[in-house]
Amino acid sequence: MKNRNKTPYYAVIFTSELSEDISGYYEMAQQMEEQAKTQDGFLGIDSARSALGITISYWESMEAITAWKNNTQHVKAKQKGIKQWYKSYQLSICRVEQEYGEKI
Amino acid sequence: MKNRNKTPYYAVIFTSELSEDISGYYEMAQQMEEQAKTQDGFLGIDSARSALGITISYWESMEAITAWKNNTQHVKAKQKGIKQWYKSYQLSICRVEQEYGEKI
Repeated sequence: MKNRNKTPYYAVIFTSELSEDISGYYEMAQQMEEQAKTQDGFLGIDSARSALGITISYWESMEAITAWKNNTQHVKAKQKGIKQWYKSYQLSICRVEQEYGEKI
Repeated sequence: MKNRNKTPYYAVIFTSELSEDISGYYEMAQQMEEQAKTQDGFLGIDSARSALGITISYWESMEAITAWKNNTQHVKAKQKGIKQWYKSYQLSICRVEQEYGEKI
């Protein structure tokens, strides 16, 4: 919800359905968001959750995405997510070609 | 939340914050989703809303996105959205390069 960067830049779309056991999930999601913000090349993050949760993080380059993917704390969080929190998930890596918007 | 297509394909990320007057919004959102599904090249849609709303629609090609952008009913819905429902919005057009996921 802000001008993030000149296109092209990159977006990681993460969609998930939660399992019944979500103890610790929201704390970890918050921690991961704080951690992502400290990564080189991080541009922003948007999230929303209804039945489906969607988190989109925005990055300057594919290299920045790879570094975040391999971040040790992030790797541990993902393992815990797959083991406990997620019923299903999907991850898409995208190149953002055009962007526009406005505050009304 | 399904295998949509072989990459590359395209995604339109629409994020919005709603204004105080959202009368008619959810009906229109539902109608637009039904309408989008009838468009050539439509692959799928994901949405979630918290403080921020995120809707991602997936398309076979940029041509399919342009056709949906110019669809008469969609144009009218967008005008009404800008006039009444949205406090702010942002739209990003992306090329999906990689995708993976699983049912756990």
